[in-house]
Amino acid sequence: MSTRASARLESWVAGRWQAGSDDGEPLLDAVTGEEVARVSSAGIDLAAMVRYAREVGGPAVRRLTFHQRASLLKELALDLNAHKEDFHALSLRTGATRRDGYVDIDGGIGTLFSYASKGKRELPDDTVVLDGALEPLGKGGTFVGQHLYTSRPGVAVQINAFNFPVWGMLEKLAPAFLAGLPTIVKPASQTAYLTEAVVRRIADSGILPEGSLQLLCGSAGTLLDELGEQDHVAFTGSAHTGRILRSHPSVLDRGVRLGVEADSLNCSILGPDVRPDDPELDLFVKGVVTEMTVKAGQKCTAIRRVIVPEAMADTVVAAISARLDRVTVGDPADGDVRMGALASLAQRDEVRKAIEALRTSADVVHGDPAHVEVVGADAERGAFLSPVLLRARPGAAEPHDVEPFGPVSTVLTYGSLDEAVELAARGRGSLVASLVTHDPQVARDVARGLAPWHGRLLVLDRDDAAESTGHGSPLPMLVHGGPGRAGGGEELGGVRGVLHHMQRTAVQGSPDMLTAITGRWTTGSRRRVEDVHPFRRSLAELRVGDTIETAARTVTQEDITQFAELTGDTFYAHTDAEAAAANPFFGGIVAHGYLVVSLAAGLFVDPAPGPVLANFGVDNLRFLTPVKVGDTIRVHLTVKQITPRTSADYGEVRWEADVTNQDGEQVAAYDVLTLVAKTA
Amino acid sequence: MSTRASARLESWVAGRWQAGSDDGEPLLDAVTGEEVARVSSAGIDLAAMVRYAREVGGPAVRRLTFHQRASLLKELALDLNAHKEDFHALSLRTGATRRDGYVDIDGGIGTLFSYASKGKRELPDDTVVLDGALEPLGKGGTFVGQHLYTSRPGVAVQINAFNFPVWGMLEKLAPAFLAGLPTIVKPASQTAYLTEAVVRRIADSGILPEGSLQLLCGSAGTLLDELGEQDHVAFTGSAHTGRILRSHPSVLDRGVRLGVEADSLNCSILGPDVRPDDPELDLFVKGVVTEMTVKAGQKCTAIRRVIVPEAMADTVVAAISARLDRVTVGDPADGDVRMGALASLAQRDEVRKAIEALRTSADVVHGDPAHVEVVGADAERGAFLSPVLLRARPGAAEPHDVEPFGPVSTVLTYGSLDEAVELAARGRGSLVASLVTHDPQVARDVARGLAPWHGRLLVLDRDDAAESTGHGSPLPMLVHGGPGRAGGGEELGGVRGVLHHMQRTAVQGSPDMLTAITGRWTTGSRRRVEDVHPFRRSLAELRVGDTIETAARTVTQEDITQFAELTGDTFYAHTDAEAAAANPFFGGIVAHGYLVVSLAAGLFVDPAPGPVLANFGVDNLRFLTPVKVGDTIRVHLTVKQITPRTSADYGEVRWEADVTNQDGEQVAAYDVLTLVAKTA
Repeated sequence: MSTRASARLESWVAGRWQAGSDDGEPLLDAVTGEEVARVSSAGIDLAAMVRYAREVGGPAVRRLTFHQRASLLKELALDLNAHKEDFHALSLRTGATRRDGYVDIDGGIGTLFSYASKGKRELPDDTVVLDGALEPLGKGGTFVGQHLYTSRPGVAVQINAFNFPVWGMLEKLAPAFLAGLPTIVKPASQTAYLTEAVVRRIADSGILPEGSLQLLCGSAGTLLDELGEQDHVAFTGSAHTGRILRSHPSVLDRGVRLGVEADSLNCSILGPDVRPDDPELDLFVKGVVTEMTVKAGQKCTAIRRVIVPEAMADTVVAAISARLDRVTVGDPADGDVRMGALASLAQRDEVRKAIEALRTSADVVHGDPAHVEVVGADAERGAFLSPVLLRARPGAAEPHDVEPFGPVSTVLTYGSLDEAVELAARGRGSLVASLVTHDPQVARDVARGLAPWHGRLLVLDRDDAAESTGHGSPLPMLVHGGPGRAGGGEELGGVRGVLHHMQRTAVQGSPDMLTAITGRWTTGSRRRVEDVHPFRRSLAELRVGDTIETAARTVTQEDITQFAELTGDTFYAHTDAEAAAANPFFGGIVAHGYLVVSLAAGLFVDPAPGPVLANFGVDNLRFLTPVKVGDTIRVHLTVKQITPRTSADYGEVRWEADVTNQDGEQVAAYDVLTLVAKTA
Repeated sequence: MSTRASARLESWVAGRWQAGSDDGEPLLDAVTGEEVARVSSAGIDLAAMVRYAREVGGPAVRRLTFHQRASLLKELALDLNAHKEDFHALSLRTGATRRDGYVDIDGGIGTLFSYASKGKRELPDDTVVLDGALEPLGKGGTFVGQHLYTSRPGVAVQINAFNFPVWGMLEKLAPAFLAGLPTIVKPASQTAYLTEAVVRRIADSGILPEGSLQLLCGSAGTLLDELGEQDHVAFTGSAHTGRILRSHPSVLDRGVRLGVEADSLNCSILGPDVRPDDPELDLFVKGVVTEMTVKAGQKCTAIRRVIVPEAMADTVVAAISARLDRVTVGDPADGDVRMGALASLAQRDEVRKAIEALRTSADVVHGDPAHVEVVGADAERGAFLSPVLLRARPGAAEPHDVEPFGPVSTVLTYGSLDEAVELAARGRGSLVASLVTHDPQVARDVARGLAPWHGRLLVLDRDDAAESTGHGSPLPMLVHGGPGRAGGGEELGGVRGVLHHMQRTAVQGSPDMLTAITGRWTTGSRRRVEDVHPFRRSLAELRVGDTIETAARTVTQEDITQFAELTGDTFYAHTDAEAAAANPFFGGIVAHGYLVVSLAAGLFVDPAPGPVLANFGVDNLRFLTPVKVGDTIRVHLTVKQITPRTSADYGEVRWEADVTNQDGEQVAAYDVLTLVAKTA
C-alpha cells in the first residue's frame, strides 16, 4: 500500500473494483492545487450494487450474532490501526494537519473500537434485542407483550461530507454493521481518495463478510431510486442537500428511513459568573480558538456563535484575538503549522461569501478574509484562509442564519440568562452547544433551556477541563445530531445508533411463545425441572427454562435474631415487636430482606465445585410481601438468558429467582447473575 | 349536555368557541343520511391558535411535573367516563354499533387511564427524563456524559382519521400532554361532531391547563405553515395525505417532526401445524370475521390479507363464510345488529371501487358488493355494505396493493413458511400481523421473519386466546405504527410515546454539574456528610447528595462460617479453602456476596423508628472485588433520587451504596430503594 491515491478512483462494487466509464472530474490537492485523482461513477450498475448488498451482504451479516459482529469490528479496528500512517500521509493532501488527521483517522478507528466494546457489553449474543420490560396484557398471565428489535433485510447507504473522509464512513458503518445491515458508502468526491484508500484496505483485509461494505466514488446518480421500505440513508452535509433527499420519492413514497445531520450554527456560551481571572475564561477562549482552527473550522460541530455577557465582550474579543495571533497557517505537513488549508478553492470562495453576508450586521475584529500569511505553501494555489472573528452589532440576524464553513466565528452579547438561551435558540436547532460556567445553578438553568434545541451539550469548568474532549468532538457513546436546522437526525450514542437501524416491534402472545421467539425465558413460561441440579450443568448443557425447585424453609424468630446479631442490622422492624407493629407496612416483626435472599441462596445453591463459578450480581430485586416468623419460603430459580463470552472459557447465566411463601404469594423477585464454565 | 351535535360545529380556539365564518359543509348521519351538523374553519385565526398553544398552553403544562400531568390525565379519564353515555349516543350516528363505540370511546378513556398510571410509575416526579446509564468519558471520573430528554417548547398537532373520533384524539393527547406539549386537534370532518362533543366536555371540566388543548373543526388550511423546529405533527390517515404532509415546507425546511400512521394491508397467517379440528382454526376464523366486521372493517389495523396453507384454503373459506352468514347488518342502535354502516356513502363508493380492483386477480367467494340485507334502516340512504370475502388467484398482485377500507378481506395461500413471510412482506410494511399457531418453532421462525415489516405481532393459540385482546386492537402500552407503507411512525408504546415528543440530548460535564442539571445524584459528585444520620430525615428534609459514611468492619472467618450455617448457603467458595483456592476468580475463601450486602446494611442502617419505613428493593447490584477474611469494609450511602408519591404520605428514596475495602477498592455497588415518610 502506498500513500499515493489511485489516478482514477475506483468503486468497490459487488466484489470488484471498477472505475467510471468516462474520464471523470479532477480532484485537486487542497495545498498545492495539483491533481490528486479523477473520479466518476459513470457506467456503474447501481441496481446491481444494491442487489448485491441485499442478497449477499445482508444475509452474511445477519447470520452472525451481535457479539460476532462486534468481534469483526474490533479486528477491523486493529487492522486499520496498523495501516493508519498510510492514511495520515494521504490525509495531508486534503488540507488537514496531522492533528486534524488524528480526529478523522484515529477518531474513526476509535469509533470502531468503541462499538466493538459496546456491542459485546450491551447487546446480547443473539440477533434480536429486547426493548423494555415484559408488559402484562391480561390478569391471568397467559397474554403478555414484549417489544423487540430485529434486523431489517435492507441496505444502509451513507452519503458523507468532505470534511471527515474516514471518521464519516466508520462512524456510520459501525452501528449499521452491528445492526445487521450491509453498507454502501458514497463519500463526497473532494476527499474521496482517502475514503477509497481505507476501503481498499478493508477489502484487502477480508475481515468483513462479502458484500457487507461497498463503495461508490463519484455521483450518487440514481442510487436512491433503488431503495425501499427496509433501507436506511444516513446523510451528512448541507441543509440544502438534506432537503433534496427528504423530497426524494423513495423517502416520500417508499418509506426509506432518512437520517440527516446538517451543519448547524452551534454556539458556546460564557456564564455570567465568570470573572476575567477565573480559569473558566481561559477555557472558554481556548475552546473557541480550537473550534475555529481544527480542520480549518470545517466541522459541522464548530462554534459559529460566541455568546458572552455584555460586560465581558471586549475582554473575550481581545483574548480570542491574542490567541488567534499565534495560529500559524500553511502546509499541513509542516509540524509548526497549526491550521492547514480548506478542502478546495471553491470552498474558500463559499466561506468568503458567508463572511460578506455576516458583515451586514457584524464587524470583522480579527483576521483578513482576503489575505493570510502562509508557511511552506503557495497562498494562492492552496485553499488557505485566515481565521476571522466578527463581532455582531445589536439585533444582528445574520449570525443566526449564515454558516461560514471555515475558520470563522461571531461574538454576540447577552444581558440575562434567558436572553442567552434565546440567542442560542435563534440558531433553530444545533448539533452542540457548550456552556462555560462554574456555577451549578447557571448550569442547570441554561442546560435545561438549551437542551430542546441541541443534540449535545458540554458544560465546561475547572473541574472537568483536564479530561474534557472539547466542544467539537462527537463521541461514539453519545448521540450526535440535533433538531431543526441540524437535520433532526441522531447518529452514534452507543447502542442507540444500532437500534436506529433496526425495527422495533411489539410482540403479543403467551409466555411460552415469547420464550420461543425471543430465546430468553419469559416470566410465566413453563419451567423445566429435571433430576440434575442445573448448577451441575455447563454453559453448553444449560437451556433457557431449566429450573431449580427448592425445598421449603420456615423462618424462625431465632433466624431473624441471629441474622441481626451477625450483620449488625438491628433495624427496629426486625428487633422490636412493638415498634414493628406500628410500622405501616409490617404490623409486626419481619425478616430482613437481605435475610430472605440469603436464605433463598441457601435453598438453591448446590455447594460442591462445579460449572457455576461465581455470583457476580443481582438485578431488579423487589421485596413484595413481608416474611414473618413462621412463614415458609421456597424458591424457583430458572435460567433466563445464556451469554457465552467470546474470549473466555465461561459465560454469563441470568436466572430468574421467584421466592414464594406458604400461601403462594411472591415475597421476593429478582435476577441472579452467575458466571458458568462453558464445559464441565 | 345532550346527545345532539351542534348545528354548526365550533372550534375551541384560544379559550373561545368559534364557528367558521361561512355556512360550511354538511355532515350526514351514516345511517339515515340526515344532516347532523355543518362544519367550516373559515375565518379562524390559525396563527393565533398556534401562538396561544405556544405562549399559554405550553408553559402551563411544562410547569407541572410528569406526576402532576399524570394526575390530571387520570382526573380527565374519570370525568369523561362519567359522561360517556352521551358520547355513545352520538357515536351511533357515525354508523358505529355500541360495540364499535366501546372501542372508540371506552378505548380512548382507557388509554388516558393507562398513561396516567404509566406516567406515575415509569416517569420521575420531575420535568426531565434520564436516558440510559452514565457514560464515563475520562479515566479520572471528572468528565462524564448522561443522556436526558427535555420537553420541547413547541406544539403537538393531531390530524386524525374519521374512524376513531374519540380514541384517535385521546391516544395522541395523552403522550403529548405527559411530554409537556400543548395539543391542537384537527379531526376528520366526517365524524368531527363526536370529537367536538368530547372536547366540549374537556373544556367544561376545566381539568387541563388553559391552552393545553385546542380544537380545529373543518379544513386544516394553513395550520402547518405556522409550525417550526420544536413542533410535532401526528397524522393518521391515507398514504396519499401522508405524502402531502411529508412534502410540506415546514417538514422539509423547518424540521417539524412528523409521525405518519397510514392504513396498511395487514395480514393474518394460519400456521401449517393447524389441523381442521384444532382450536386454533376456530380462533383464526373468529379473528378474521371480527376484523372484517368491527367498525364495518374501517380500521387501519383490520385484516386485509388472510394467508393460509394451500391445503387449508377451502376449509378456511367455508368456515369464514359460515360465520359471515350470521352477521346482521343494519341500524347500529339495534342490539341485534352486529355490523353498522360505513361512515358515508362516499366511503362506500371507495370500498366498492377497491373490490372491483381486487377482482382483477381474486374472486368474490362470500357477499355481494352491490347488495346487502339491512335490519332497521334504509339500505340506500345509509352507507351499508355486505361483508365481502375474496379468494386470490395464484400470483395475484392486487391484494398486496389495494386497500378496501371496509368489511373486505382476501384469502391467499402459501406453500412453505418462507413463502408465508414473503407474502406478508409484499404488503411493504404493515401496522400489525397475527399468526395463529400452537407450534413454538413456527412462531419463532415466522415472528422473526415478520418482525422487520410490522409494528406489532400477535401470536394466538389456545393458551392466550381467552385473554387475547385480538389482532386489531392497539394497546396503550404497546407500540402502534409500522414501517414502509404503514407510515413509518410510532405512537403509544407506553413511555416510548411520551419520549417521541421530547428531545434527547447528551450532556457532558463534571459529575457535580450533572447532578445540578438532572436533579439526581451523579456518581462521582461531592457527597454531603452531616451530623444528622439521613435515616432521621423525612422526605421533605432529605436532599440529593446526603450521605452516610459508615464505620468500618473487618470480615472474619467466623462471620463467613456463621453466615453459611445460618442461611444454609454452603457454596464451596465460602466453606472449603482448598476448593476455593482452585476457583479462577477467588483463589481462597471469600465472603458470600449476600453477606457483604447484609454487613453493609448493618453498617448504614439507623435502627430506631424514624422516617425510613422500609427497604423495598435493590437495583443493579454488582460484586466487584471478592471480600476475603481480614478485609475491612465500609459503606457510603448517598441519596440519589427522591420521588414523593402523590397519593401517599411517603415517597421513594433511591440511595447509591458504595462498599469499599481497606485498599479503597470497590467491592460492591448497588442502589437501595426505600420508602420514607414525607414528614418526620
